[in-house]
Amino acid sequence: MNTPAHLPYGGIPTFARAPQVEPGGSWRADVAVLGVPYDIALGFRPGARFAPRALREASLRSVPPFTGLDGRTRLVGVTFADAGDVVLPSLEPELMQSRTTTAARSLRERCTLPVFLGGDHSVSFPLLRAFADVPDLHVVQLDAHLDFTDVRNDTRWSNSSPFRRAVEALPNLVHITTIGLRGLRFDPEAVGAARARGHTLIPMTDIQDGLAGAMQQLPRGQNVYISVDVDGLDPSVIPGTSSPEPDGFTYAQAMAVLVATARHNRVVGLDLVELAPNLDPTGRSELLCARLIMETVCEVFEAAGNG
Amino acid sequence: MNTPAHLPYGGIPTFARAPQVEPGGSWRADVAVLGVPYDIALGFRPGARFAPRALREASLRSVPPFTGLDGRTRLVGVTFADAGDVVLPSLEPELMQSRTTTAARSLRERCTLPVFLGGDHSVSFPLLRAFADVPDLHVVQLDAHLDFTDVRNDTRWSNSSPFRRAVEALPNLVHITTIGLRGLRFDPEAVGAARARGHTLIPMTDIQDGLAGAMQQLPRGQNVYISVDVDGLDPSVIPGTSSPEPDGFTYAQAMAVLVATARHNRVVGLDLVELAPNLDPTGRSELLCARLIMETVCEVFEAAGNG
Amino acid sequence: MNTPAHLPYGGIPTFARAPQVEPGGSWRADVAVLGVPYDIALGFRPGARFAPRALREASLRSVPPFTGLDGRTRLVGVTFADAGDVVLPSLEPELMQSRTTTAARSLRERCTLPVFLGGDHSVSFPLLRAFADVPDLHVVQLDAHLDFTDVRNDTRWSNSSPFRRAVEALPNLVHITTIGLRGLRFDPEAVGAARARGHTLIPMTDIQDGLAGAMQQLPRGQNVYISVDVDGLDPSVIPGTSSPEPDGFTYAQAMAVLVATARHNRVVGLDLVELAPNLDPTGRSELLCARLIMETVCEVFEAAGNG
Amino acid sequence: MNTPAHLPYGGIPTFARAPQVEPGGSWRADVAVLGVPYDIALGFRPGARFAPRALREASLRSVPPFTGLDGRTRLVGVTFADAGDVVLPSLEPELMQSRTTTAARSLRERCTLPVFLGGDHSVSFPLLRAFADVPDLHVVQLDAHLDFTDVRNDTRWSNSSPFRRAVEALPNLVHITTIGLRGLRFDPEAVGAARARGHTLIPMTDIQDGLAGAMQQLPRGQNVYISVDVDGLDPSVIPGTSSPEPDGFTYAQAMAVLVATARHNRVVGLDLVELAPNLDPTGRSELLCARLIMETVCEVFEAAGNG
Amino acid sequence: MNTPAHLPYGGIPTFARAPQVEPGGSWRADVAVLGVPYDIALGFRPGARFAPRALREASLRSVPPFTGLDGRTRLVGVTFADAGDVVLPSLEPELMQSRTTTAARSLRERCTLPVFLGGDHSVSFPLLRAFADVPDLHVVQLDAHLDFTDVRNDTRWSNSSPFRRAVEALPNLVHITTIGLRGLRFDPEAVGAARARGHTLIPMTDIQDGLAGAMQQLPRGQNVYISVDVDGLDPSVIPGTSSPEPDGFTYAQAMAVLVATARHNRVVGLDLVELAPNLDPTGRSELLCARLIMETVCEVFEAAGNG
Amino acid sequence: MNTPAHLPYGGIPTFARAPQVEPGGSWRADVAVLGVPYDIALGFRPGARFAPRALREASLRSVPPFTGLDGRTRLVGVTFADAGDVVLPSLEPELMQSRTTTAARSLRERCTLPVFLGGDHSVSFPLLRAFADVPDLHVVQLDAHLDFTDVRNDTRWSNSSPFRRAVEALPNLVHITTIGLRGLRFDPEAVGAARARGHTLIPMTDIQDGLAGAMQQLPRGQNVYISVDVDGLDPSVIPGTSSPEPDGFTYAQAMAVLVATARHNRVVGLDLVELAPNLDPTGRSELLCARLIMETVCEVFEAAGNG
Repeated sequence: MNTPAHLPYGGIPTFARAPQVEPGGSWRADVAVLGVPYDIALGFRPGARFAPRALREASLRSVPPFTGLDGRTRLVGVTFADAGDVVLPSLEPELMQSRTTTAARSLRERCTLPVFLGGDHSVSFPLLRAFADVPDLHVVQLDAHLDFTDVRNDTRWSNSSPFRRAVEALPNLVHITTIGLRGLRFDPEAVGAARARGHTLIPMTDIQDGLAGAMQQLPRGQNVYISVDVDGLDPSVIPGTSSPEPDGFTYAQAMAVLVATARHNRVVGLDLVELAPNLDPTGRSELLCARLIMETVCEVFEAAGNG
Repeated sequence: MNTPAHLPYGGIPTFARAPQVEPGGSWRADVAVLGVPYDIALGFRPGARFAPRALREASLRSVPPFTGLDGRTRLVGVTFADAGDVVLPSLEPELMQSRTTTAARSLRERCTLPVFLGGDHSVSFPLLRAFADVPDLHVVQLDAHLDFTDVRNDTRWSNSSPFRRAVEALPNLVHITTIGLRGLRFDPEAVGAARARGHTLIPMTDIQDGLAGAMQQLPRGQNVYISVDVDGLDPSVIPGTSSPEPDGFTYAQAMAVLVATARHNRVVGLDLVELAPNLDPTGRSELLCARLIMETVCEVFEAAGNG
Repeated sequence: MNTPAHLPYGGIPTFARAPQVEPGGSWRADVAVLGVPYDIALGFRPGARFAPRALREASLRSVPPFTGLDGRTRLVGVTFADAGDVVLPSLEPELMQSRTTTAARSLRERCTLPVFLGGDHSVSFPLLRAFADVPDLHVVQLDAHLDFTDVRNDTRWSNSSPFRRAVEALPNLVHITTIGLRGLRFDPEAVGAARARGHTLIPMTDIQDGLAGAMQQLPRGQNVYISVDVDGLDPSVIPGTSSPEPDGFTYAQAMAVLVATARHNRVVGLDLVELAPNLDPTGRSELLCARLIMETVCEVFEAAGNG
Repeated sequence: MNTPAHLPYGGIPTFARAPQVEPGGSWRADVAVLGVPYDIALGFRPGARFAPRALREASLRSVPPFTGLDGRTRLVGVTFADAGDVVLPSLEPELMQSRTTTAARSLRERCTLPVFLGGDHSVSFPLLRAFADVPDLHVVQLDAHLDFTDVRNDTRWSNSSPFRRAVEALPNLVHITTIGLRGLRFDPEAVGAARARGHTLIPMTDIQDGLAGAMQQLPRGQNVYISVDVDGLDPSVIPGTSSPEPDGFTYAQAMAVLVATARHNRVVGLDLVELAPNLDPTGRSELLCARLIMETVCEVFEAAGNG
Repeated sequence: MNTPAHLPYGGIPTFARAPQVEPGGSWRADVAVLGVPYDIALGFRPGARFAPRALREASLRSVPPFTGLDGRTRLVGVTFADAGDVVLPSLEPELMQSRTTTAARSLRERCTLPVFLGGDHSVSFPLLRAFADVPDLHVVQLDAHLDFTDVRNDTRWSNSSPFRRAVEALPNLVHITTIGLRGLRFDPEAVGAARARGHTLIPMTDIQDGLAGAMQQLPRGQNVYISVDVDGLDPSVIPGTSSPEPDGFTYAQAMAVLVATARHNRVVGLDLVELAPNLDPTGRSELLCARLIMETVCEVFEAAGNG
Repeated sequence: MNTPAHLPYGGIPTFARAPQVEPGGSWRADVAVLGVPYDIALGFRPGARFAPRALREASLRSVPPFTGLDGRTRLVGVTFADAGDVVLPSLEPELMQSRTTTAARSLRERCTLPVFLGGDHSVSFPLLRAFADVPDLHVVQLDAHLDFTDVRNDTRWSNSSPFRRAVEALPNLVHITTIGLRGLRFDPEAVGAARARGHTLIPMTDIQDGLAGAMQQLPRGQNVYISVDVDGLDPSVIPGTSSPEPDGFTYAQAMAVLVATARHNRVVGLDLVELAPNLDPTGRSELLCARLIMETVCEVFEAAGNG
């Protein structure tokens, strides 16, 4: 630390102090970050539009490389770029989707691991469309809710439907594992449709006595897109979310799922959604989410041999 | 006060303890209230979706009739009904608009003065459509912003465009008076279009030395729909709004404009929009807005001879 | 979901969208809800007066019936009514008590399961008085504190004394099981009096290694009134309460106690008290409490054969 | 400033760093402060119970003596004592009243100017009882509300009634001047009773064009108790209060009233009530109120020749 | 607006979407922005360290050029650059000062108008040191406090002393005009020292009847550095500041002072300090401050002939 | 409880209602409390300067002696004194240190157990200097971070370095046990230096399967100074801290560590640092921390035979 460096509240906040790039520019990085500040598709408490900026600011406490207590250093030589946010319209969901898919495709062409900062969960649909060329694409979705509803509140584009839209649009999306499910009410049609497709649905009740059983149900050896809905975690851990559900994952449990997924598969992309920083005046929600992203990135690159 | 009455935080909150009705039911009242909890058309800080509920709760401190310090009692015998909120979809602006127009029409058929609780300012367009039969309709708009832009952020339906859409759809909407205009940036095309139609645009700079001049520019003897964007008031008075602009109306000034409008015209409808209760933890924004609505209602019925 | 329905922030908030009724009106329902917005009997941080309204609003995310992930549907055909709040005086505890007991009696005459929304814990005394006719009444109290003090801070009516007053007034109240007890300081006289009456006192330290032992101490086959003081739960789960105590129940643990109580007894009434929504700006306290109420209702009706 | 002094957030907060005394102890001071942390008599948003502590903390930014920009030094040699708070019961208004009157009497015996920190406005009744021996006592009440109601919400002891109770109990209380009155609704019986007694009622509408007229209606040459309800000031100036009313006094206007009162009369006591620090997260409410108290104290001692 | 542009919450926040540059890089702009996120020199409520980032975010609602209601367009062709923040140490005030002066000098060499975002007011000293070559430098300081104290709380480097240090270090700093002074307590030695140097001290009491008199005391035809302490404005306008003082400038009054200063002098630099965004949950403090900066920039460039 | 006692929000807040003393006065107590309201040495979110006052206020809910549910009474006859806060300068870390060490030494001369209320963690260095005469001093540090860095952000005095400075200054400080370590990034030099000195470093990962192993690594039979950095606890338990790290101690786990330390050693002093009350609007952070302090005090005096 001989060169003076900014304190976390200093400097213009790109993700982990990465250089800022344009999605379609002439750059190349191991990890590239793209924000999708969009939350009009959720039906309860807004605020996820503020998450990309909050995550960038929070990331400044965790700038790699990281030396652990054990002396091991992670993310040495792994390069980052921050492609800013998708330029979004007001309203006009389909225009939002086309711009998001285009930007995500540009990102994929220029990096090994694209990291997407939502936004509400509806953004996972246009993001996944940028992965239409990945053979046998699997999704691992950490979430309290299924988000596989066909139509809800008179629309097909809400944050209850991203994965329904994705499987309709992407023949290569062969499997979804949803872990963390809980709550009083599920959409029976959506549950039926997911089960009919053979999706793996892992409720939190399966995890009360430990994660071991659930771990065995995670995919192995696949091309995996990870989608982290922060309401998968317990509201005491991440209070800043629109629709909290009790009895969710601890941070350690969520990381265990992400580590297992990263170690045993090829992670092609990662999103984190439904973080509403405005709903948590303690600020810990974004701080923990930024670290969760960064720790997952570590695991992906370690699995790839250069973490 | 011989019958025990609820304290303001007691009881299920209809507006001013009015009986709850269905917009299309078989009721009749002098004043009827309808909420439009919709805020996805604004492009900055959300929260106006929470305003109808907050305004109802705040209204419980101001249940008529009202006896003033001068012993005069207002709103004696004036009946109220609360028609609840329009049932809104997620996304799907045109569906929101058709449902809102339908509900507003039902309200008009059953009451003398419909009062609409927004929502962001985009709701004024579908609300005004319910007034397509009013001859020579005038609008008095209290607002920092013109909201007459054709297309903004790639959409025609944002909260920057309600009055543009309204004049396109309503041949009977002959004039708009916008009072309270200020800010660094205006859309030149929108200003030009408003001036070309002969609209009266009154900036706050005209009011620095008193309201007298502005008062003379208000309509007289007309059928008037009043639209109060709360950012017309000063942010120190109403902090709970998406896009505050300095140097706005005091409460007394805003009421003076509303009183003059009510006394010298026939008020056919009233909306209050862009209140974001979540942005004002002191709670005074909704308390003052509820009173502003109620005081305007007083003036309308006094002008009509039974206030 | 073919009929359009309100989003949670839309519509006038009765509990779970139940029809609004008067406590003494001519209605009948399986479940009836009554609020007691009273918090002047607590001696620390006020706000429980705002809980009935907050719980109604939060309940709108959980409108029955509920289909679970397992396809089982609960509360089909179970009818709800919302009787609003007791009309309360300022100060005058005994007047508050008589009105509350009267309203609760009216509720009991018209429904199978009355659900009461406090208020501070002092309201449990007038509520229990409405159950003076229940043979061999048992109370299961989930709470960090004993609330069995005779006189505290110079009054007999504070939120430290409801159960002391209740056993004095109700000869049929034969037993109280208090679970969740913890904290540095207990009133020795109150502990002695409770033990002398044979009450079952289960401290949290008994639960550190699991709930099994505690479960065996819960009543079976009895007429049970459940009183949930939200400070029985851990403050990380429910931060919105006047007097948080560390090391409380998780949501899952609290539900396990409530499920066991509901399944093995006849639940005659339920209250939830000491929720202070103003102390939790994340809003999760009322969201989780509304769900806890609803899940308990499910269990009661399942135990009765029609959950 | 050669001796190191605490920063405002350092040290145990007595009012203006005064020595702490017991109300009945053997001390003597020019100014003595007593808190009455009681707010269960108000019928809307609680929090005034926290005001005495907040005012003490805020006072630490304004420790006398004060040298102005003009070089004049005020409060040189004027001694202060802080008698802490009245020890209050839970509930039991009459016990609260007797303890408050007793403590206030003790204070009066030991100081020239007692300063009382409320609490809701109901505390002014027991405080005024300690002035039963003052000949021809006048009250100057700065307030949005009249607070002269006989019975409200089924009680005689609420914060709507302190002055009604006071005139009943104190034959020497010959006159009340209430300045700052405004709002939609007044209790006609209370207004009539006040007018029948010849009270001076000055509404804010009289002040729109300046304070000069109102100033002439203030008492002169009298023994005056000043009662400042902070809702007399505008909610933009003091947002932290239960029942804000628009169009109140600016700070400068309120001080002008207080200065005129202090200069032309003998001030026998001062209270400041209805400050709810919990309702203003900016903290300016208590900071401005502490300064308002201190500035009034300056004026009282200047009027007495040693300010 | 044919090219899609970010909504205010989208994109990585540089000031007004200006390109990001290094202070010492090879760029050139008309206006350049530099943040100094430093607040350990204030003695009350921290948070000004968060102001540069908050001001950048707030500036995104006001991206030039600006067309007014009158059709006039301002800041056409005026170029902006954002040099980020000074890289600051923890503690070590003199190191903070040297780095800040160095960065400010770099900025001055590359732009016409440097704009500095504090930080507490202590940063004005190292910033002014970068203007040591300006002949006959004048400062116009909008502030409630004098900030000319020699030593306070045992240090020479606090936010009470920047201008004392500046006049010691800069022989070319010939005059300071401080406008907005008010408060109970001034440091007599500091007032004496300022008066001895001939500084112009304008208290708010001089402005009660209008700004005209004060305007005549502002410098004319000078090289002026403007320092805006946001506590010069009224706390109802800008609540987000450490040490609010009542009876400050309205926004319009502050702008009038800034306009007059800009029009009649050559503005060589501008800072805005003591904004604490964390103390204003309504967010209006930073929104109004960003606009105040931008409007002052407009005036500077209009005065220079290309606004 | 025959003598009336203050409710927690009443009275001038000394710690647990202890008499207020001067650090250097002629008093003697078993437990003495000293605050160090200093937080300019932390590099992220300030607020620990407000902790001593918040802890005193929170302590008023836990005034000893304490009778438990088991009837055992603790802290009978143990006397307390509150020595207020160290009078601190602005900036000037070395002056802060000398004053803090002096005050802490005075405290030690007058009491058995000094309890120090931070402040950020940098205050532990000057506090420990007051223990230079204790033979074979051990420190038990509950903390997420090592705080053993030599130089960080260009300073030797930040909250990352207190224990490095302490071992340099205190030859008698023979051992540090740090428990609760976690996070992505450690300073390798600091870890190496700590290990080279033989410190015991216990990461949270060692505790996932229970505390038993860690317990065995705690010192026994030593003179121990306990330093509790509240970020050692989980952020869901104590959200009010500058730099939260997930997966920390529950309250029960932290107490288990403190109990074991107290029972098996001679505790010579205790500090609690890095509490930022301003970051937790629920207020539970200070309430739980005050209780943690009090419970630790109980254990220390029980271990000494008179708890």
